[in-house]
Parts: sequence; C-alpha cells; structure tokens
Amino acid sequence: MHKSRIGAICIDVPAERREAAETFWSGALGQATRRGERHPEYSTFGVVHQHVLLIQAIGAGEPRVHLDVHTDNVSAEVARLAALGATEIDGLDGWVVMRDPGGSVFCVVPCDADDATMTDAATWP
Amino acid sequence: MHKSRIGAICIDVPAERREAAETFWSGALGQATRRGERHPEYSTFGVVHQHVLLIQAIGAGEPRVHLDVHTDNVSAEVARLAALGATEIDGLDGWVVMRDPGGSVFCVVPCDADDATMTDAATWP
Repeated sequence: MHKSRIGAICIDVPAERREAAETFWSGALGQATRRGERHPEYSTFGVVHQHVLLIQAIGAGEPRVHLDVHTDNVSAEVARLAALGATEIDGLDGWVVMRDPGGSVFCVVPCDADDATMTDAATWP
Repeated sequence: MHKSRIGAICIDVPAERREAAETFWSGALGQATRRGERHPEYSTFGVVHQHVLLIQAIGAGEPRVHLDVHTDNVSAEVARLAALGATEIDGLDGWVVMRDPGGSVFCVVPCDADDATMTDAATWP
C-alpha cells in the first residue's frame, strides 16, 4: 500500500533566465521566493492555492503543461503582467496568451470575482 | 483594483492522444474526468489539492512547466504509473522522470508519508 498525489508544479527555466523568472513570478503572485538549500536549483513559493486541473486537446503543437492566471479583469491583469516583463503573444475568446521572461507560456483567463477560485486571489491596485 | 491568482493547470495534448491522456491521468489520480460542455476541448478533474510552486533552473533545454507526483514509495508508484501507460525516461537522486501517454513529461518524487503535502494523497493497494 502506498500513497501519491500531484505535489508540485515546476516552472523550468534555462539558468541564464532564472533571475528574470524569479522576479517576474514573485511580482505576478505577490509572493517572495526562496532558493533551496539542499537543492539550490529550485526557488520555491511554498504552498499555493488549490487549482483546477485540466487536459486540453490541442490541434497542433507539442505536448506541454501551462498555467492559467485567473482574474476578474483581463486587460488590467495583462497590463500588470506586461509591466513585470511578460509579453503578449496571442489572444482568443477573451483570454490572452503570454510568455514569461523565463520563456514559459501561460494564459490570462477571465473569471467572475465571486467565483470560488477567486476568493483567495491577490488584490492589485 | 482587480484580483488574480493561478487558477488552473492545463496538460496540453495533441488531439489524437487525448483519450490516452484522459485515461492515464484518471488512473494516475484516481479521479474521473469530464469533458467540458461549453469548451469540449477541455477535460476537467475539478479542483485538485494545493501544491508547492517552484521555479527550477535547468542547465539546457527549452523552458517548460512540469508536474511532480509526490509519493511515499517511488518504485511502487513508478510501477503503477507504468502499468497505466507512462514510460520511464530518466532517473536521478531517487526521482524518476516519466512521460505520460499524451507526451507530457512529469517526475515521481519521494516524500515522507507524514509530510504535510501527503495528508490528502490517494492510497493505492
């Protein structure tokens, strides 16, 4: 008898872009990050909130995993994340696809402010 | 003033491997999946547990996001996931790197059974 669960999400980034990725995601989440002592190649944000887990069938392209940032104001959030160094690469159906300074692609997705997943969201001015 | 948070993790899979990925991750997590009505390209597992969020500096290779499966018994978990269709592609420091049938790479990582992240893990015979 043994146990298992999905326990971590890792954003893998080439070493030369590490600081850019740390700075971006710290700003994006409003949380400090800390480099590991035993495994210094990792920078942790500690435990983050619960998420929805999805499989998405894509028409073309390579398999990958991506994160969705949920927000009650897509344009304000895209502007905030762009100011932190992310670049906008596509948009469809009200969603915006962005690339973080480490090179990983993520989406900014609209979500009602009273949605269950938004109750513990960070609030931005 | 607006709000945001990471709200979802998406496993992107080429359409022809969708059913294989659904079957694998349903088995891996011990949870049923359901295709979306408004967005049928998504299959959801609903809300999953909280996770650790990490940035990992990699020496070479492309930026990507990957999931870690935490377990108190790596060899038993790797055998279970291999029986569900994942393939072992590498191993280091007691961790095992696997590829799911949809093509996404993930890791199986040892974690003490009394670790906080394991309290709500699924138990396997």
